Parts: sequence; structure tokens; C-alpha cells
Amino acid sequence: MTEPITRAACAARDAADPLAPLRVQFTLPEGVNYLDGNSLGVLPATTAARVQEVVTAEWGQGLIRSWNSAGWITLPQRVGDKIARLVGAKPGELVVADSTSVNLFKVLSATAQIARADDPRRTVIVSERSNFPTDLYIAESVAAQHGLTLELLDIDAIPARLGPDVAILMLTQVNYRSGRMADMAAVTALAHAAGALMLWDLAHSAGAVPVDLNAANADFAVGCGYKYLNGGPGAPAFVWAHPRHADRFWQPLSGWMGHAAPFVFEPGYRPAPGIGRYLCGTPSVIGLSALECGVDSLLTAEPLGGMAALRAKSVALSELFIALVRERLAGSGLTIHSPLDAGRRGSQVSLGVPTDGSINGYAVMQALIARGVIGDYRAGDGSAAEPHLLRFGFTPLYTRFVDVFDAIEALAAVLASGEWQQPQFTHKGAVT
Amino acid sequence: MTEPITRAACAARDAADPLAPLRVQFTLPEGVNYLDGNSLGVLPATTAARVQEVVTAEWGQGLIRSWNSAGWITLPQRVGDKIARLVGAKPGELVVADSTSVNLFKVLSATAQIARADDPRRTVIVSERSNFPTDLYIAESVAAQHGLTLELLDIDAIPARLGPDVAILMLTQVNYRSGRMADMAAVTALAHAAGALMLWDLAHSAGAVPVDLNAANADFAVGCGYKYLNGGPGAPAFVWAHPRHADRFWQPLSGWMGHAAPFVFEPGYRPAPGIGRYLCGTPSVIGLSALECGVDSLLTAEPLGGMAALRAKSVALSELFIALVRERLAGSGLTIHSPLDAGRRGSQVSLGVPTDGSINGYAVMQALIARGVIGDYRAGDGSAAEPHLLRFGFTPLYTRFVDVFDAIEALAAVLASGEWQQPQFTHKGAVT
Repeated sequence: MTEPITRAACAARDAADPLAPLRVQFTLPEGVNYLDGNSLGVLPATTAARVQEVVTAEWGQGLIRSWNSAGWITLPQRVGDKIARLVGAKPGELVVADSTSVNLFKVLSATAQIARADDPRRTVIVSERSNFPTDLYIAESVAAQHGLTLELLDIDAIPARLGPDVAILMLTQVNYRSGRMADMAAVTALAHAAGALMLWDLAHSAGAVPVDLNAANADFAVGCGYKYLNGGPGAPAFVWAHPRHADRFWQPLSGWMGHAAPFVFEPGYRPAPGIGRYLCGTPSVIGLSALECGVDSLLTAEPLGGMAALRAKSVALSELFIALVRERLAGSGLTIHSPLDAGRRGSQVSLGVPTDGSINGYAVMQALIARGVIGDYRAGDGSAAEPHLLRFGFTPLYTRFVDVFDAIEALAAVLASGEWQQPQFTHKGAVT
Repeated sequence: MTEPITRAACAARDAADPLAPLRVQFTLPEGVNYLDGNSLGVLPATTAARVQEVVTAEWGQGLIRSWNSAGWITLPQRVGDKIARLVGAKPGELVVADSTSVNLFKVLSATAQIARADDPRRTVIVSERSNFPTDLYIAESVAAQHGLTLELLDIDAIPARLGPDVAILMLTQVNYRSGRMADMAAVTALAHAAGALMLWDLAHSAGAVPVDLNAANADFAVGCGYKYLNGGPGAPAFVWAHPRHADRFWQPLSGWMGHAAPFVFEPGYRPAPGIGRYLCGTPSVIGLSALECGVDSLLTAEPLGGMAALRAKSVALSELFIALVRERLAGSGLTIHSPLDAGRRGSQVSLGVPTDGSINGYAVMQALIARGVIGDYRAGDGSAAEPHLLRFGFTPLYTRFVDVFDAIEALAAVLASGEWQQPQFTHKGAVT
């Protein structure tokens, strides 16, 4: 039997962690152990001042002149080029625009068009049954519009399904429920071998795990600004197209910012070259500026090893979490719902709630939050395959080994004490 | 011959203006006479602190909890209900979401679907040739997708064109170039008499002129947050549907926030009841919060007579501007390109640049800006019908009668001195 893991041992790991100094980049609330950066990232210390500058100086004083003098007009590209460094894209290949949902609509519409132009028998969009719902809702809509069929499968059944009728495979690389991570290069190669296009949603990947879109030879990608990129609530999202497609397709949200010459005010639409045509309306300047601070907070890790170093710490944090679950929560009924192989796991670990109803997962998370440990709860169908989940995200920019230790201690206490059964925790009012 | 208008007379009008106290609500740059609120509104004095609170307290401290505790999740409806008061909509009929372009895509897709369901022979979208380009680009896209035809006409030719093949009439109530304002109720009645649906873009109306969507019996409307609503650069936009349509149609941007139960995470899309289905992705919380301050700055005028009082002052300002153009700029070659009938004019006046090329309108505006008077320049085709324009917007919340006087004095000086011919003004680098 091994020695129990101690808090002192965790503190020693923090003291030895070369990434530990990055934590001061963030404004974290006192008394909160935040393990929900996979849902909403934390506030970088630079953001408040930068947003204030944009509001008071650039908008308030510069007014309309700031479209040029403050570079507002190129913000979607400037911030896009920074995100590109985190996901293996080249400068000019990625722009920030709209929401993930809207960007999914753009790329799915484009891929539908490309696939059918190349081979009209390709009429199926394949995705994972437990993909994030907005991805499925948008795909459902695009399928209905283009006369395609959306087929939702268990992830393991997807390779066998790829065939001559599949136009597009759309996956979120890291599943929002299980944290299971797909091998981007291998899955893309499977899709391409079957003649399908590959669309990746990087919502739980960008800033969380190393991504190399060009090396994986992906076709399209979208991603979220407010999770691991720390862009703030409702931050704008991003979209990438492989250069082989960028000039080739039409996307239906043909707003003026995606026009080849928006300020010529022509009556007819001419798409901008490359990824620029994925822009639509006037960019959200304040939101983009906040997002830039979040992205910058990740880029400061580049001299320390960048995403590879962050990934190594993320794996160490989640391995510690799993070890502590096994050590402290054995017999609690909670199960580890994320892959045990770290190579197949993103930067989160989800715990399954017993399917016998003995534990109210929602209430457990509320009680845990009352103790200052913030994860989140995601209901399933209650089955063993899709149990109700307690999700814990690890963001190596600021999560410490002691935070993981303390979270498990708190969770063990919530379960052992039965305090989650108090009415203030069992009453369901929360929406997130 | 009447006495010339004096600056003292203008100052006296400001002193007697019951709306003058509203000006202190805004943070205006020193030495700037801002007549471009029709392009980007100014900064309300409350916005910086409110945005700071959202960033540091709600996001930084509240983190994910603020979706509930700070009411983020209902921001699109809360701010929507405030905008509703400015445009004759009822609570629950209007939401804030995405950009004007994206919202146009939603409503045009819905109207295309409704019109064709009611009468498949209706295959034409009619709009104004000089409508704002993004409206035309989006309509071009929707038409292509739905097998419809987009027909662009001069505004006066539209009534005669409305016939049994017209599905939708889409107009911006106040034309962005000429400032010409359509009679919303009369034009809507014409469209309905011909069996067409009526879609209004309120980009230059909301917060500028009284609008009553329900009284006009309009079908759909969209509008912009960053012009007269003072929401900040790239502020989110809004969308309204008449209740008779709200539950009836499907719009293709079926993101999770428009789902009937977004936090149940169902795999299939079920649209929310009413206007809620027009939401798509996660709302832009910081941008929405800034927009709310801008809308609040307009609602403070309600005890002073609201939009009717603001309109009366707007008309007085533009009438003064026109009188001064006639008095001070006669013989300059500049023409008044906006309707002379105040009842047919929005809250801006555009001056046409001589078509003989004797004046470089772009350079004149740059020289005027160098003197601290900010309007903007919009190129035309150089013809008498669509000349190059100098645009001046009047925003009665903060524009004073002396500002109008000073602007004309500056413009007269720029023209009389010929200073616009200096190279720093004639070199075209600006994009707005």
C-alpha cells in the first residue's frame, strides 16, 4: 500500500512548478478554489485596465476615429493571429468573430457546399451523440437547409460509419461531458480516407491542450473565447479554415465586414480573400479587447514551454485528481467518467454520480460551491453510459496542486457529512 | 432679407432647451464637436464604471455564478425590454443578440419561409438600391439560398413594384446616405395591401426618431446598438418579431440560447417560445452591459417627453443646420442631399459634394475633423442622384444649437480658406 498523498506533498509540487509564477497574471477571488475554467475562464489582471482604456480613451475620446487610430478595424485579425499560435494555425488563417454557434453555421454551410460540389452523393453529417448541444442544433439546421442528414453516433462507432455518403465529420475534440479527447491527426486522417471533410470544435481544446490544425491537416475549426482563453463571459469566438478551402467557398452570413472592400459600400457582395470572408457584422470591440488580454495570458507561457508545458502540468493535475479520488472517495459511489489514459483526456475530469439515486449530484456541487470549491454539474440521462456528472476543469495557468488536494478534501467532507442533503442545496435554481 | 443667425441666438436656444440637462450624462472629449452619433454614439458617463463592475466584480469575483447571481442569463431580454420602450414594442417582444447583419439573416430567413408557405408564388425580396450594403449582402445571400430574387429599386419606384410576386419588403427606415425617412405605418400598409411582409432596419431610427412597431403593424425589425443607442463600438444588435409571427417560424441560427431549455442539454433543437428563439450563442455580457447604459441614457428622457421631445429637438437642430447651410454656404457648391421636409428626414443632414469635381469631399471632412468638428464622408458614384456626401448627425441628447452653428462656421472656413487642399487631408487613409 502506498503512502497517502499529503497536502504538504502537493505544496512541494507547487513550489517546484516552473509555471507557478503565471498565476499572478490573474485576479482570483479570495477563498475560491476555481475548477470551472472549462466553462468560464478567470479574469486576467490586465483585462480591467485594458477594457477601461478601450471604453474611456478609445471610444470616449477617440470616438469614430478609433476605427483607424486604435486599430479597431483589424482587431478580428490581430487577435485571430494570436489565437492561431495556440492552435497550430498560421497568421492570416484565423479570425475572431461572432459566437461559436454562428461560426459553426458558417463552416457547416461551407462544408456542405464543398462536399456536395465534389460529390453530390455525400449527404450525411456525422457527429457524436454527446457533442455539445449547440453544435448539434446548428448541424440539424444546416442539414435541414441543405437536404443533408445529421447522424449522431457514439464516438467509438464513428470510424466504421465513415463511408462514401458522409460529407462531413464534425467533432468537438474534447467532449464537454466526459473530457474524452480525440486524436486530431488520426481522426482527421480517417475522415479524409473516407473522402469526408473534418470540422473540429476546439471549445475545450484551445488554450487547454496542444493543437496543431495544419499538422493534422484539418479542414475547418471553430472555438470559444471564454473558456480556456479567459476572454470573459460571452467573449467572441474564432473560426479557422485550411488555406486550401479559404478562397473556395461561400458562407451565407455575408455581412459587410466579410466583403472584399467594406468601405466602398457596393450594393453587391464580393467576399474578402481567405478567412476574411468569415467576418460578418461590425466587430465587438470591447469584447475583442478583453479576449486579447486572455489570449495574451496564455502567450506569456511561450518562453516557459508554451502549450506543451501547460499540457504537462494539466496532465499532472488531473492525474493527481484521479489518484486522490481513488484514495479519498473510494466507496463514495462516485465513478471516474473521464478516460483514465491521460493521452485521451482533455484538461478536465468528470465524476459520475451513482445511478441508484443515492446521491443528488446537483446538490453535492452546490454544497461544494458553498465550501468555496467551484466545479459544475451536468445532468445526464442517469444511465451508466451517461450518468449525471460533477465536472472539474484544470487550468494550469493558475490551478495549483494544493487546489486539487483541497477540492477532493472538500468533496469528501460534503459526502461524508451528508450536508448536500440540506434544502438550500437540493433546491434547483441554478442554470449553469 | 432676414437677419443672419448669430451664435448668441443659438446659445439662447440652448439656455431655453428643456433637454439641455441631459448632456451631462455623457463623457465628451474636450474640443470636439461630435456630429457623428449616427455612425458611433458617444460614451455615457455611467458606462465605464458599469463595465468595470461587470469585469471586476461580476466576472472576476462572481465567475460562473454570475450567470444567475448577476442576471447575465436574462440580459438579452432585460436590455431588449428597455429598447422595446423606444421602438413601440411590448415587453418580451424584442431581444438583444449578435450583430445587425446576423439578425437580418435570421429575420429574412424566417420571412422567406413564411411568405413562401403562405403563397409559393411570392419569390421576390424588394429593397432600396441605396440601402446600407450589409442589408443588401445578407438579402442577396438569403435570396440565393431560398431560390428568391432580390430586386433593388429607387425608393420612389417601390410602391408600384409591390405585387403578387413580392414576398418581403425590406427597408431601412432612415437611409444611411440621404437621411430620408420612410413613413413606417404607411409603407407597412402598402406592403400588406400587396400581401408582402414588412421588415424594418431601425439602425438610424432607434433612439433617433419615434418608432411604433406595433402601431405600424410591422412584421419584423432589427436595429443597431452602437449608433443612437450609444452602446459602444460593435455593441450587440436587436431583433423584434410581431407576436403573430413569433411562435410561427423557424430561423436557421438555432444556437443553444434560443432553445426552449438550453440547460437541459438535449440533443435535438426545440425553439424557445416567442422571440427567445432568435437568440443563438452565449450572449456578449460585457457588450450587453455597456449597451444597457446607452439605452438607459435615452430612457432618462422619458420624464422630459421621451422620444417625442427628442425628435422635436432633433428637427430643430437639423432645421437650424439647413438654414445655416443656406445662409453661410450658398455658392459653395455643396447641396442639401437630405429631404427639406423635416417630416421625411431622420436625425441627420447630408450635404452633396459638387459633381464637377471642384471639391474633394473626403479632404473637406478631414480638414473639418482637424478643426474638431466630426462628421463623416460617404462616397457616392459622383452623379447628381448619388453624390459624394458629407454627413452630419444630430443627437439631441447631447448636441447643442451652438454645436450646429460652430460646425457650419468651421465648414465655411475650411471651404473659404481652401485648407482642405493640403496633402494631409487629401491623402486617403481612413476607412470609416
